[in-house]
Amino acid sequence: MKKIEIGHGGGGRLTRDLIQEVFLKHLKGDHLHALEDAATLSLKCDQIAMTTDSYVVHPLFFPGGNIGTLAICGTVNDLAVSGAIPQYISLGLILEEGLPLDTLEQIIMSISEAARDAGVQIVTGDTKVVEKGKGDGIYINTTGIGSIVRRMSAENIESGDVIICTGTLGDHGTAIALAREEFPVESELTSDCAALNKMLEPLFKIDGIRWMRDPTRGGAATVMVELADASGLGIQLFEDSIPLRNDVRFITEMLGFDPLYLANEGKAIIAVSESCSVEVLRMLHNNPLGVNACVIGKVTSDFKGVRLRTVIGGERSLIMAEEETLPRIC
Amino acid sequence: MKKIEIGHGGGGRLTRDLIQEVFLKHLKGDHLHALEDAATLSLKCDQIAMTTDSYVVHPLFFPGGNIGTLAICGTVNDLAVSGAIPQYISLGLILEEGLPLDTLEQIIMSISEAARDAGVQIVTGDTKVVEKGKGDGIYINTTGIGSIVRRMSAENIESGDVIICTGTLGDHGTAIALAREEFPVESELTSDCAALNKMLEPLFKIDGIRWMRDPTRGGAATVMVELADASGLGIQLFEDSIPLRNDVRFITEMLGFDPLYLANEGKAIIAVSESCSVEVLRMLHNNPLGVNACVIGKVTSDFKGVRLRTVIGGERSLIMAEEETLPRIC
Repeated sequence: MKKIEIGHGGGGRLTRDLIQEVFLKHLKGDHLHALEDAATLSLKCDQIAMTTDSYVVHPLFFPGGNIGTLAICGTVNDLAVSGAIPQYISLGLILEEGLPLDTLEQIIMSISEAARDAGVQIVTGDTKVVEKGKGDGIYINTTGIGSIVRRMSAENIESGDVIICTGTLGDHGTAIALAREEFPVESELTSDCAALNKMLEPLFKIDGIRWMRDPTRGGAATVMVELADASGLGIQLFEDSIPLRNDVRFITEMLGFDPLYLANEGKAIIAVSESCSVEVLRMLHNNPLGVNACVIGKVTSDFKGVRLRTVIGGERSLIMAEEETLPRIC
Repeated sequence: MKKIEIGHGGGGRLTRDLIQEVFLKHLKGDHLHALEDAATLSLKCDQIAMTTDSYVVHPLFFPGGNIGTLAICGTVNDLAVSGAIPQYISLGLILEEGLPLDTLEQIIMSISEAARDAGVQIVTGDTKVVEKGKGDGIYINTTGIGSIVRRMSAENIESGDVIICTGTLGDHGTAIALAREEFPVESELTSDCAALNKMLEPLFKIDGIRWMRDPTRGGAATVMVELADASGLGIQLFEDSIPLRNDVRFITEMLGFDPLYLANEGKAIIAVSESCSVEVLRMLHNNPLGVNACVIGKVTSDFKGVRLRTVIGGERSLIMAEEETLPRIC
């Protein structure tokens, strides 16, 4: 079985072979050429969005995806929730000596597929290799750019706005926890890892759309706290409206996790004017990724911060997570 | 002494504190805001260049710079040699649990300084933390974009063109080798790590400029082989014209390294029409980073590949490096 050697990161023949035989084989496109220092791109717009994320998820493969799928979907989603059309993505790999070449190729194939599905192009890349014990198989950085169609901002939200969640929460975090095999639970659960741009783009035209965010690390609770802080307003969430898969509800209860703090990789939370909320829900329900979209809360000027009306009628404040629930979730 | 904990990568309070107290403290600018998923940038041009590089240099600090300086200069230089004005840079950090916070802050300060000197802005970032033993202090990805002013291409070069090197070769590679303390040599040598954009930009106006490249990993030899391959022409290099510092010449001879294959982080190799070469040299000599610029070879249709006319009058072919001379040089 062929494995990654230190020389694959040396910039010489081994690097060139890897580029030709693995990267260009699967990722070749209009813009990705071997051995160019930078890609030349057309981007006809006044404003562009730029986002970066490194992926260190453990394990590399999990039900519903792998680190490659995640690296594309995550960066595509960051652009989409910023009101941009994702277009070009760069790919920076840090490989650990000894990584099986087959594993690398599988991940690159997933990257290729995810990029094609999302309609983005991998335009430039870089590969470094570190010694065994100085990495963990593969770490990926994806940086994405796209043209901004609709400017989103926490400053846009107003008291009375509605908070919509595009689907069930906590799927990715729970799936990763199970994939680590630290918990003896059998489950059909998969990560929700998906590119949201095609679902979200039609919403950019709706006047009442104020703000969007994908609740990854830190989960929906953290994102809501950030929105409340940035807007100076309060957010009232309703626990009985929060969409949860039954298995996620069961497993998180058993493990003592709060699904509101678990990562999602194929969900968006959207703040929208009340008058547009029905139309937004209708549009979301037309997309397979949005069938479970629903209203989970509302913006209010009655208080600051985030409060959760619990199922039993109580109320508790949600704050930013202090501890890390699950390290290396993405 | 405060150290990086796993929770610093969790997206919660610790992450937010790190962003506020280290990143925003030193990197705050017009475009870098806390807790936004993507930066919004103005870029008024039809064509942009995009480049990505991950940095895994060992050791993190070396004479003449550190991993932070390198991450900015390297990405700025990749854009500059592509005929672009570097503008915006993203910063992706993978931190190893236990990294002293002081070390991180020192690196971030170097990033800030290098970015300011080069005239680029850090516009978005991401931080992940991996467990002790799954990284090596800090790995950095920088991805840069800029507007293309002058299109460079290996296809532009013609027989008779002149190859100019902007300064002494092998400084960075040799400095890193010495910094590893594997070799008992005392030296004043420092890495040549520097941003070349301000030196190169005036050259974009000169008609006879065909192609530029910064000879990092794999060194000048690898870059020349790539140019020969891509153009289908031959390149004749003259060993006695190749600028070398005396200490680099001495140390590389002693260690058995070929300085033509060692990395440089503040040099460019430029292919230019013969008629413009005097003007280009004059312009380079006006910049402190280009005082040692000289002609090191010429393009020919007499053969394919790269040939080095040696000091003693012989000739040898240069091929792409097979082995890695120095792993983790950048």
